[in-house]
Amino acid sequence: MLNIAVIGAGRIGRIHARNIAAHPCARLAGISDPDSGAAGSLAAACGAASITLEEAFKAEAVLIASPTPTHADYIERAAQAGCAVFCEKPVDLSAARVRDCLRAVERAGVPLMVGFNRRFDPSFAALQRRLAAGEIGALELLTITSRDPAPPPASYVAQSGGLFRDMMIHDFDMARFLLAEEPVELYAVGSALVDPAIGAAGDVDTAAVTLRTASGRICQISNSRRATYGYDQRIEVHGAEGLLRAANMTSTTVESAGRGGFTTDPALPFFLERYEAAYRAELDTFVTAVVDKIPSGPTGEDGLRALILADAATESVRTGQPVRL
Amino acid sequence: MLNIAVIGAGRIGRIHARNIAAHPCARLAGISDPDSGAAGSLAAACGAASITLEEAFKAEAVLIASPTPTHADYIERAAQAGCAVFCEKPVDLSAARVRDCLRAVERAGVPLMVGFNRRFDPSFAALQRRLAAGEIGALELLTITSRDPAPPPASYVAQSGGLFRDMMIHDFDMARFLLAEEPVELYAVGSALVDPAIGAAGDVDTAAVTLRTASGRICQISNSRRATYGYDQRIEVHGAEGLLRAANMTSTTVESAGRGGFTTDPALPFFLERYEAAYRAELDTFVTAVVDKIPSGPTGEDGLRALILADAATESVRTGQPVRL
Amino acid sequence: MLNIAVIGAGRIGRIHARNIAAHPCARLAGISDPDSGAAGSLAAACGAASITLEEAFKAEAVLIASPTPTHADYIERAAQAGCAVFCEKPVDLSAARVRDCLRAVERAGVPLMVGFNRRFDPSFAALQRRLAAGEIGALELLTITSRDPAPPPASYVAQSGGLFRDMMIHDFDMARFLLAEEPVELYAVGSALVDPAIGAAGDVDTAAVTLRTASGRICQISNSRRATYGYDQRIEVHGAEGLLRAANMTSTTVESAGRGGFTTDPALPFFLERYEAAYRAELDTFVTAVVDKIPSGPTGEDGLRALILADAATESVRTGQPVRL
Amino acid sequence: MLNIAVIGAGRIGRIHARNIAAHPCARLAGISDPDSGAAGSLAAACGAASITLEEAFKAEAVLIASPTPTHADYIERAAQAGCAVFCEKPVDLSAARVRDCLRAVERAGVPLMVGFNRRFDPSFAALQRRLAAGEIGALELLTITSRDPAPPPASYVAQSGGLFRDMMIHDFDMARFLLAEEPVELYAVGSALVDPAIGAAGDVDTAAVTLRTASGRICQISNSRRATYGYDQRIEVHGAEGLLRAANMTSTTVESAGRGGFTTDPALPFFLERYEAAYRAELDTFVTAVVDKIPSGPTGEDGLRALILADAATESVRTGQPVRL
Repeated sequence: MLNIAVIGAGRIGRIHARNIAAHPCARLAGISDPDSGAAGSLAAACGAASITLEEAFKAEAVLIASPTPTHADYIERAAQAGCAVFCEKPVDLSAARVRDCLRAVERAGVPLMVGFNRRFDPSFAALQRRLAAGEIGALELLTITSRDPAPPPASYVAQSGGLFRDMMIHDFDMARFLLAEEPVELYAVGSALVDPAIGAAGDVDTAAVTLRTASGRICQISNSRRATYGYDQRIEVHGAEGLLRAANMTSTTVESAGRGGFTTDPALPFFLERYEAAYRAELDTFVTAVVDKIPSGPTGEDGLRALILADAATESVRTGQPVRL
Repeated sequence: MLNIAVIGAGRIGRIHARNIAAHPCARLAGISDPDSGAAGSLAAACGAASITLEEAFKAEAVLIASPTPTHADYIERAAQAGCAVFCEKPVDLSAARVRDCLRAVERAGVPLMVGFNRRFDPSFAALQRRLAAGEIGALELLTITSRDPAPPPASYVAQSGGLFRDMMIHDFDMARFLLAEEPVELYAVGSALVDPAIGAAGDVDTAAVTLRTASGRICQISNSRRATYGYDQRIEVHGAEGLLRAANMTSTTVESAGRGGFTTDPALPFFLERYEAAYRAELDTFVTAVVDKIPSGPTGEDGLRALILADAATESVRTGQPVRL
Repeated sequence: MLNIAVIGAGRIGRIHARNIAAHPCARLAGISDPDSGAAGSLAAACGAASITLEEAFKAEAVLIASPTPTHADYIERAAQAGCAVFCEKPVDLSAARVRDCLRAVERAGVPLMVGFNRRFDPSFAALQRRLAAGEIGALELLTITSRDPAPPPASYVAQSGGLFRDMMIHDFDMARFLLAEEPVELYAVGSALVDPAIGAAGDVDTAAVTLRTASGRICQISNSRRATYGYDQRIEVHGAEGLLRAANMTSTTVESAGRGGFTTDPALPFFLERYEAAYRAELDTFVTAVVDKIPSGPTGEDGLRALILADAATESVRTGQPVRL
Repeated sequence: MLNIAVIGAGRIGRIHARNIAAHPCARLAGISDPDSGAAGSLAAACGAASITLEEAFKAEAVLIASPTPTHADYIERAAQAGCAVFCEKPVDLSAARVRDCLRAVERAGVPLMVGFNRRFDPSFAALQRRLAAGEIGALELLTITSRDPAPPPASYVAQSGGLFRDMMIHDFDMARFLLAEEPVELYAVGSALVDPAIGAAGDVDTAAVTLRTASGRICQISNSRRATYGYDQRIEVHGAEGLLRAANMTSTTVESAGRGGFTTDPALPFFLERYEAAYRAELDTFVTAVVDKIPSGPTGEDGLRALILADAATESVRTGQPVRL
């Protein structure tokens, strides 16, 4: 049984805390949150206790689900305390800070896993395995579509690091996961079409990125902060011998037919529903990796590289020029 | 070039006349119809002439698309005249009359093809070929779904011979085409749920039939005179090694997504649209069969056997008992 | 917290025991099984104890997942002990024995829920709700397709009560659930096409049933003990204003494309996977019903009525005649 | 009846000649081709005559389906002769030459339509109509996927003008058709991944382009010269209120199921099959426009603008920089 403390009792901390409590090989060491009410009620629901940060760092492992600006510090404190660390993305919005933090982790010699949950989505994971197994030959074109159901409030946007670091960073990680080669060039365009307040805050809500690798593989990513039909999460890979794609998921398989045609459910509403199985598989990978002492990703380095792509995209939109990586 | 006269300038005659006019190996010898205006305008549209019945029977082949009560007589007259004959289904609503007519055709030694157009639908034909080629092993369960978009007027129902002889007869032919064995038992249930006037006329508008063959293969057919989502025409075959099914067709491949989900087009509206390609392939089969003197179906015997099943279904609904065939 | 004892540590008992252990409002009172090793290891996995039958009947509720011949006795003993009862289907293979048992339950005044899990499948449940809400008007034709991935061993068949009581009983329950009217007539055909040993044991492995209600609604059910493409579980309802259907589920949404076309996953392998969410929702309904003292189905009466339909189907195949109900 | 001469008896000329011969309001004035055998046999198949170029320009209209280098000259000669002109794309591979040609057409005052057949594909046309009608609100992101089944021979590539002018020019036209705004910026990447000979010839076979309009609408196009699963032609539009997409077409609706899952047909093999209906609708639009003297597109200006985008894409790949338009 791996003893895991959860830091952060918000939306994402709740998912992880419950998954830890239900995991056959993990034990929830407690929940730490400055909002002791939130920590207490989540702890109670999971049969655990509200604990202090100091107590959290005494567990075998910590799962960091606190606000982004605290991530790097908590990772370093956990590493110094000898904890295995799972941290929600991003490690930090500054690549320099991430590098420092990763060095501290390396010095401490503790395992660090970063929460790129999409790698663990059963459909995306199966697609990656089948691609890696050569089912469609060499990858030539990769298309990643991510669209949130609704834009975040402008207040969130202001401190989010912008669409590329906040939202598309997941797609950058998936691109790296699937391309099996590092991008050498990136070009991004972005617009504020969904909410003028997002544009006023200096961010975009609609964006497209092109990545190219050294061997000439091409990846196209598109993001929108709005999709009336649910949380749109799709991947398509075109290879020398065929195509692999993973579609959206729906709540039910019910289809209705009438004068207007044949209608199926909208896509699952948002990440809590869509990535429910992914969060469980992600935790399971972390627990197994720590218990069995086997290296496992996504690593801190993966977190850094996705951030570097997000920084480059931000720069590309600003300058209107492609960025060599 | 096969010289073909068309008898009947109604809805179905128009389809055939145009297909003959466009066929590279056929020539439209003329159109015969008691309504000389209809014959004339159809003939003009096809670059042919309005002709008398007598003139029609001088062509190498006749295509009979006149009202059902005239079919058997015209077949006999055409056969006596030495014409190859294509006749729209049914040959007659009376099995005895059909038998007489087929004897006359046999004596005359002319080819006779009956217009079971669905055998020529590209999807149904491909399904049958793949089934016959053994792709899913032996057929075990066959499911045929046929639903018209809207009920016919009660006046039509009265002289139609009833749902089983008028509508399900097509499904009986498809069942025989796919089962590759004759049914030995039939059970039918029927209700008037769509239009009380149909029930008042002694007919049903919603029906289900079960067929069983000597080796134990089972077929389920369902019919409705109403489908808000278009002309519903589907076949599904369950075999020892898998399943084959043919779905409905739509006008376009466009799909929309919004709050209500993902919506595709309704099914094609009715038989003119759905079986457009089938009518062309059917004619092509007839022309090739006559020109190359190769036997080809569906034959008069196929027409008779489908009618016998329709008679049995009518009887089964009346008595509430299964009918041994 | 509802204290529930599980009787039976087999395949289905394991599902329920784990779901009880994970349910926020239930507590697993222990596992009882004559095979104390099975009971013990399941209990250990769920953080509970192996208990005797007598101890089980001291819990607030029992969940009976033991072999079918024990069901009615255990229900009666549980009822006498004042337990709320959840019993896997069927209550018994004899309708007379079921009637006796239900009387005993009624006398005891305890709630009894029968394990027709399919009513709780998210897709089937949504279909039923939308149908009941009038989305497609009055139901006219109902089509239920159930195909197991592979036939059971002949030894199982011998004591199963036959396909209609063992397998199609679920479809009879779904038919009643959706028709919203009792069937008044049933006709069944069956064949042994999958495994001659099943035929030799006096059973069938391929079957089709037609049900008709007093108002003329029609239901067609088909079953096969074999489907190479997974556990095939589909429902389609044709109503006056449209159609509702629920399709099979797959493990992933991945689709591949190549020379052979576009390929998606097979259907989920069998009931453990397909009805995983249904089992959870079923338990949740039971717990809520008992805790909140609200009546809830499927009831013992539902179990009896499905069995009566299964008996009638067995009789119909034997005699070749429809059965009036 | 519009009298139309066809210039060019190759693959595309054959399609048009047959469609003209079958059109109720058009008459095939003859076929002109330097290869008099090709012209003669096509003419014979269409019930017309092989004619000289000079004779062709005496028709009311000419349809130019000859090799690209001849297009601009023939357009000018036809225009001088007062013919209405339909010309296959492109008008020329040089934008300067196209401009000269269009000026000549303008001076002559004859109608000119350019063969961007995809605008007339029933699915793409329906998508455009529904988009223009506001069904999904304002367009925000447009994704166009075009993949040929197999690369052309290197000899073809050498004189084709390159992938952007030869293949993606169709997608540029569709982008303009759907964006309802001119692109102001274009960025392209390309690789030779399919056939090294294509790279050696200085061209690419795999490419991605990003377009941005003044109001911030974004379009992503991807092309490959290879797709094992057929001719891949898809469009997806993301708008403020939803999504519209048009999928590939297949020969049949047959689906098979077995151990490997559920499989549908590959996409239609290539443009002759996929755009069969589009070619008919395109001709119909031309005939109607000329006969009824109504302006109709795609115009010569559309041809020029698509070429300018193709030139920009070629330049962007060469320099690695985006191009302002």
